[in-house]
Amino acid sequence: MEETLEFAEKAHAGKPQLPLALRLIRNTGVRKRHIVQPIEKTLHHPGFEERNRIYEIESKKRCPEVIEQALANAELTARDIDAIIYVSCTGFLMPSLTAWLINKMGLRFDTRQIPIAQLGCAAGGAAINRAHDFCLAHPGSNVLIVSCELCSLCYQPSADDIGSLLSDGLFGDAVAAAVVRGLGGTGIELERNASYLIPNTEDWISYAVRDTGFHFQLDRRVPGTMEPLAPVLRELAKDHSWEAGSLDFYIVHAGGPRILDDLAKFLEVDRKVFRHSWATLTEYGNIASAVVLDAARRLFEEDTPLPGATGLIAGFGPGITAEMALGTWADDSPQSAD
Amino acid sequence: MEETLEFAEKAHAGKPQLPLALRLIRNTGVRKRHIVQPIEKTLHHPGFEERNRIYEIESKKRCPEVIEQALANAELTARDIDAIIYVSCTGFLMPSLTAWLINKMGLRFDTRQIPIAQLGCAAGGAAINRAHDFCLAHPGSNVLIVSCELCSLCYQPSADDIGSLLSDGLFGDAVAAAVVRGLGGTGIELERNASYLIPNTEDWISYAVRDTGFHFQLDRRVPGTMEPLAPVLRELAKDHSWEAGSLDFYIVHAGGPRILDDLAKFLEVDRKVFRHSWATLTEYGNIASAVVLDAARRLFEEDTPLPGATGLIAGFGPGITAEMALGTWADDSPQSAD
Repeated sequence: MEETLEFAEKAHAGKPQLPLALRLIRNTGVRKRHIVQPIEKTLHHPGFEERNRIYEIESKKRCPEVIEQALANAELTARDIDAIIYVSCTGFLMPSLTAWLINKMGLRFDTRQIPIAQLGCAAGGAAINRAHDFCLAHPGSNVLIVSCELCSLCYQPSADDIGSLLSDGLFGDAVAAAVVRGLGGTGIELERNASYLIPNTEDWISYAVRDTGFHFQLDRRVPGTMEPLAPVLRELAKDHSWEAGSLDFYIVHAGGPRILDDLAKFLEVDRKVFRHSWATLTEYGNIASAVVLDAARRLFEEDTPLPGATGLIAGFGPGITAEMALGTWADDSPQSAD
Repeated sequence: MEETLEFAEKAHAGKPQLPLALRLIRNTGVRKRHIVQPIEKTLHHPGFEERNRIYEIESKKRCPEVIEQALANAELTARDIDAIIYVSCTGFLMPSLTAWLINKMGLRFDTRQIPIAQLGCAAGGAAINRAHDFCLAHPGSNVLIVSCELCSLCYQPSADDIGSLLSDGLFGDAVAAAVVRGLGGTGIELERNASYLIPNTEDWISYAVRDTGFHFQLDRRVPGTMEPLAPVLRELAKDHSWEAGSLDFYIVHAGGPRILDDLAKFLEVDRKVFRHSWATLTEYGNIASAVVLDAARRLFEEDTPLPGATGLIAGFGPGITAEMALGTWADDSPQSAD
């Protein structure tokens, strides 16, 4: 955060938006972020073509290791994977990186490819839900999810509207992977999924696509969207005979501090139930579709629930779209089977 | 075709590639194509931002009517739709048009959105297969597929490599929609789907993403890809106790004349079995992910199979990816129930 404040002081020196920019950065609560290039390079815009070239190089450099780890965690090999869902809104390749990953990582050539670029931050939840669907449609399948969000490659130096100033202090880069197993394994057993679009909000979070690439546009009403979404989450839980306010764990998108604070308020839960999302936000920034995967990692590593514990996963992003899931913690490790 | 030849004579006047360009255009077999703008405008590149703006305007103008027709054909209303799969590789919007369509067309706000931009021409097959999967995962669901391919908005006036010269004469614009019903209806009852990536061909069909937008790149080896894909189709049919060479109908991607000729040769079928794909190619050009939907329309309208007739659907595109499905004609219209 200190570095971001310093750079903002320079970038907006003498301009009227400087105090606002500094205040927005401080309010994000983001203490640390990772970016794929040195900050001097990040702040320079070398053109859309060059940025997309960097996206390709960096995604190919960084995804394989993360995928290997996800496969190892799931106690599977690349050959066990039946579908790969690749979500990323910060670079555009055709074919999607899925083709390269199948060739490079030894996935089977009959692996289904499901690349999704246009669900933004909601794509982490969408990936989990489509993986769940795939396992329902093809029992016993395993689905690899890869999220590659190099948000810093969408930094637009010339943008000084309030949404841009806020996002300049908020977004971070991340690569994440996870496996949804059709059978067995330890983790969240997915039971139900759903999607919801808040009516007539499609221009609240959007990209302006320009010759200089993707320009992130954020409406000032976005931080208030948990008020209409909390009842949707309640309803979803109710349909599953659960209470959204009384679950054992919550893996939600950390769009920003207001999102998490408001969701606590409108679900009437202690803000600490979102501690994994808060940790992701504080330590990595808003890493778009990777947030839910990183928050889930923290649940696995720091806070393993008891078998049967109930939980909620929710990604929020452009649309405004919420991608939601309900699941129960399951543990089939040998010590738990005793 | 006459107009394309005339324009090519002008565009390449006095240049060494002129005879090749004219020969490539003649060999496409494309007699007619539709484009969203007058040809003079199409040939002029107003910049990536402006092209994408035209994509947004034209897709919003042209999709609703096509969707209404698809819903009417399926004897469903917008409220009956549970998921929308939107495939398009010729413009980029975030959020995807799915959000706008849900708001505009009266789809339910809990409709799942599955936008796919990076499977190119294979996305028509992928959309059908993901719709099939969704109906398997959520029995009784209905999935709306929308394909919006405004290929002319990717025309790059400066490109004069052989792949570009070929594609300038080949691609056409189209908007298509279809509904995959979970229960009932008349059409192809989907029974099995599969995907296949030809090893190490990921750079054979690709976009170079530049400041001027998407530049289509086609390797000269692409027209020969039916030789490795025909055995895959045979194997898929065999797994289903069918013979790929003895089915009653074929809905395949018409990438170009060589694709269809070779597929006939390697599956050892009469080239006439691909008559619907030939008709799409001749009358509309290669309309990317919309080809299989248009070829399917011709099957429905011109050549209705008998109940129980067996068929194959296959889309081919970047990866090189084949998205394949097997199904049986089902008819639950009143006269057929007699």
